[in-house]
Amino acid sequence: MDENTTPWIQIVQLDEPSLKNNTADAERLLQALRSQLNIAAVDIDLSVLKTLPKILRDHDFNIRCVLFKEKHQWVLTDIQDARDTQLCAGLAIDLGTTRVVLRLVDLVSGRPLTESAFDNPQETIGPDVLSRIHFAEKEDGLGHLNDLIVNGLNSAIAQLCDSQQLTPEHIYALTVAGNTTMTHLFMGLSPRWIIREPYIPVANNPGVIKAADLGLRVNPRARVLIFPNIGSYFGGDLIAGALFSRIYQSSRTCVLVDVGTNAEVLLGNKNWLIACAGAAGPALEGGVTRMGMTAGPGVIDQIKVDATTLAFDIHTIDELPPIGICGSGVIDLAAQLFLSGMIDIRGQLVPAVCGSKLKIIDGLSHLVVVPAKSSATGTELTLSQADLDSLMRSKAAMYTILETITESVGITPHELASFYVAGTFGSFIDPESAISIGMLPDLPRDRYKSLGNSSLGGATLALESDAYHDEINQIRERITYLELNVNQDFMNRFSAAKFLPHTNTSLFPSIKTAKKKELDAEPG
Amino acid sequence: MDENTTPWIQIVQLDEPSLKNNTADAERLLQALRSQLNIAAVDIDLSVLKTLPKILRDHDFNIRCVLFKEKHQWVLTDIQDARDTQLCAGLAIDLGTTRVVLRLVDLVSGRPLTESAFDNPQETIGPDVLSRIHFAEKEDGLGHLNDLIVNGLNSAIAQLCDSQQLTPEHIYALTVAGNTTMTHLFMGLSPRWIIREPYIPVANNPGVIKAADLGLRVNPRARVLIFPNIGSYFGGDLIAGALFSRIYQSSRTCVLVDVGTNAEVLLGNKNWLIACAGAAGPALEGGVTRMGMTAGPGVIDQIKVDATTLAFDIHTIDELPPIGICGSGVIDLAAQLFLSGMIDIRGQLVPAVCGSKLKIIDGLSHLVVVPAKSSATGTELTLSQADLDSLMRSKAAMYTILETITESVGITPHELASFYVAGTFGSFIDPESAISIGMLPDLPRDRYKSLGNSSLGGATLALESDAYHDEINQIRERITYLELNVNQDFMNRFSAAKFLPHTNTSLFPSIKTAKKKELDAEPG
Repeated sequence: MDENTTPWIQIVQLDEPSLKNNTADAERLLQALRSQLNIAAVDIDLSVLKTLPKILRDHDFNIRCVLFKEKHQWVLTDIQDARDTQLCAGLAIDLGTTRVVLRLVDLVSGRPLTESAFDNPQETIGPDVLSRIHFAEKEDGLGHLNDLIVNGLNSAIAQLCDSQQLTPEHIYALTVAGNTTMTHLFMGLSPRWIIREPYIPVANNPGVIKAADLGLRVNPRARVLIFPNIGSYFGGDLIAGALFSRIYQSSRTCVLVDVGTNAEVLLGNKNWLIACAGAAGPALEGGVTRMGMTAGPGVIDQIKVDATTLAFDIHTIDELPPIGICGSGVIDLAAQLFLSGMIDIRGQLVPAVCGSKLKIIDGLSHLVVVPAKSSATGTELTLSQADLDSLMRSKAAMYTILETITESVGITPHELASFYVAGTFGSFIDPESAISIGMLPDLPRDRYKSLGNSSLGGATLALESDAYHDEINQIRERITYLELNVNQDFMNRFSAAKFLPHTNTSLFPSIKTAKKKELDAEPG
Repeated sequence: MDENTTPWIQIVQLDEPSLKNNTADAERLLQALRSQLNIAAVDIDLSVLKTLPKILRDHDFNIRCVLFKEKHQWVLTDIQDARDTQLCAGLAIDLGTTRVVLRLVDLVSGRPLTESAFDNPQETIGPDVLSRIHFAEKEDGLGHLNDLIVNGLNSAIAQLCDSQQLTPEHIYALTVAGNTTMTHLFMGLSPRWIIREPYIPVANNPGVIKAADLGLRVNPRARVLIFPNIGSYFGGDLIAGALFSRIYQSSRTCVLVDVGTNAEVLLGNKNWLIACAGAAGPALEGGVTRMGMTAGPGVIDQIKVDATTLAFDIHTIDELPPIGICGSGVIDLAAQLFLSGMIDIRGQLVPAVCGSKLKIIDGLSHLVVVPAKSSATGTELTLSQADLDSLMRSKAAMYTILETITESVGITPHELASFYVAGTFGSFIDPESAISIGMLPDLPRDRYKSLGNSSLGGATLALESDAYHDEINQIRERITYLELNVNQDFMNRFSAAKFLPHTNTSLFPSIKTAKKKELDAEPG
């Protein structure tokens, strides 16, 4: 395999048939493909077979073959004149609960061509997985949810193709990475048992399915690789992330963290992989604190608090007037409030330090982050004590999960060689802030690496080579899933982590110093 | 595997899922099937997957699975309550150029339930392969031929199911054995190159195809095994015959002969197989001599000629007044004419012996076999010298082909341990007559075995066990196809065989004796 060539497009020059070499057209071609790709089994769709004799003879037995790999065999999905220069495309799909991202790639090189994204149309049914699962149990509910995502994808695909002077028929291979519920709804499988003890998906490894069977309007013979899941709470998006992170090839132990409503953690190296998922609480997701929202234009993503004047220096995405705050902004804000003494080690607002920034609304303390006159909405943006309490639980849960999973293999979080943070959260979070509040361990900052959309990244890799298909299955088989038992030991750790940065400040040496510096510098 | 059980229907009792055993439904089931059947790979159709969680839970994880084997994997085509007693059916199809025969079997036991047959509706286009191939090249010709056979099959299937209180949805597995052209037309593949040098089929081994993709109205997930061919002139019907004959397992060398327009010959034993096909001439097929026809009610299938009076003792199928003669009747007649001296060793009518039975019509000698007053048609049934000449060429071709193929492996026809004769021809032919005219070798008569419809027989076996699927491929791979070069050597043999029974009468010791006896007994 050449460096910049996928195995999916093969130019084949066949020997012309003769009385001495009178193998049938199909076997002649499949034999050549098997030997060219060094593979055992290739199948051929009946509809391709129907076109074969004419295409072979019209083009002097010199043809371009479009292939993909199913679970147990390769499959020939199209044949063309070898001199055909029409682009053959692949499509990687990150099937998010909130947002769906498509990346079109050139199937010859595996090189990305363009991307697009749209809000998951199932949001009209419910914002989260749980509400959609309940809806799916209603009559025609599952069918409706399935239609929403499939139609949404078909529209997006049509637009994406338009923008590249392609027709959807030129898309021959697709990869889909989503959480277990999104994958089920996309395939029309009932998600009912995912949320009921003992939490059983319909399928862990659905493999490769014909696009037409899924209702996708691309080439009807196109194949769709559905990323496998480990179980109800560790989906294909995370397997895709694991593939993209390359943790499974690392000689040193690393961790991959994806944070949404759940904190999903994959720990390991080239020898072993262990995963767990736990409720990280809602504080880190958009839409939960009253001013909280998904990262987007005008959303506060960074905040600095002046140590002396306690003035807020706010940064918004695209530098527009502020409309709300995203998860990374909340973490920044909490870190700065803690370092400036505006909240104490229990995460409680300190009236003596907050001064006029503190307001009581409906009997609850609120910190005014942006006054009404400066906000894009015309009303003040505030952070309540309840928001802070929620964040304290989330950050404690995150740290406890990391402590628990590392301890399960006999190491501490501080021994991690690389700390990969996936997704939007990973793109925006400032590790310094997350460490300051004790949410992430106090590692040298350069060990933190943002992976971006690792789910889409993994889905893209699976369009580059069949070797990644094997690796996906190896990853899936090698991962040991650690069931997080919320027992007394876990609760003790959790309680200890509900302080800023932690009850045991020796775990956060760099933060203790910073805090001390602040305190030292504080005017008496 | 029990003696009377196919592997296709499996009752599975799964462990119910628990927190300690929380594999997904699909993997739980596939794991159980892999271990129960001792196989590596099972795939599951998306539409079955959709029904899985409910069926498992409605029936306490105790289900009946319907399976079939594709080329590279097994496939699960349905799941039902384990206590379901509804019949699951399989259908074996002998896809003849002239006649199509269906055999419905119980897919649990592999036991035949009933049969039906219909004339291949493509006969409206042309009686033989050649005329249909030419028609297929016209615009929409292939589509029309494909529609004819698929619609014909669908009607026959609906009727067959009706007769068994089944619906076609209960048919889950089909096997189709036909010659290379019939198989191509059934699959909608162009037969164009089958008859053009170097005689290349589109596919030799199309494998297993979804019934729905072929347009068959049975269970849409049913799978159809298409018997492979060796080339343009050795089709799946013959591979099915080879499977049915068990020649490939025999320790002694045997031969299988199927005679239509072509004589198809398979020679071999458990160590090797060699095949050839050659034009046997039209004399052995119905519809060729003017009174010739396919075996059926009122058709002459046996004739004795009284050695003294030369009176004809005619037997017809169902003992109805005679309407014509079939291939085996022609052979019987020729043998009797030769033994009674009415034709000479060159196959020429002998006026002195034939006497008043001889008539000149349009300048050509005819033998009146049935006078007008005795025939069902009201006109006399005659055998012309041209018909006899044609038979002489056919019988010489048959013997020459047998001589050539046996010689190619260094044996003579007389060393054959068993001589299997397939098809309608095999069911009706009297080996004594065929030997008398030197068409078949002078073996002890008990070595001749009629196989009946061996194509249908082989197709039925493939519904019994996957082991036969492997054997089909082994047979196909083991067969060496002998290209019959019509060279000087072949022509010399052919010329020598154009005598009754043969120029070299020592090859037919038992016939020489009989002839001698006849001659001895002849009144001077």
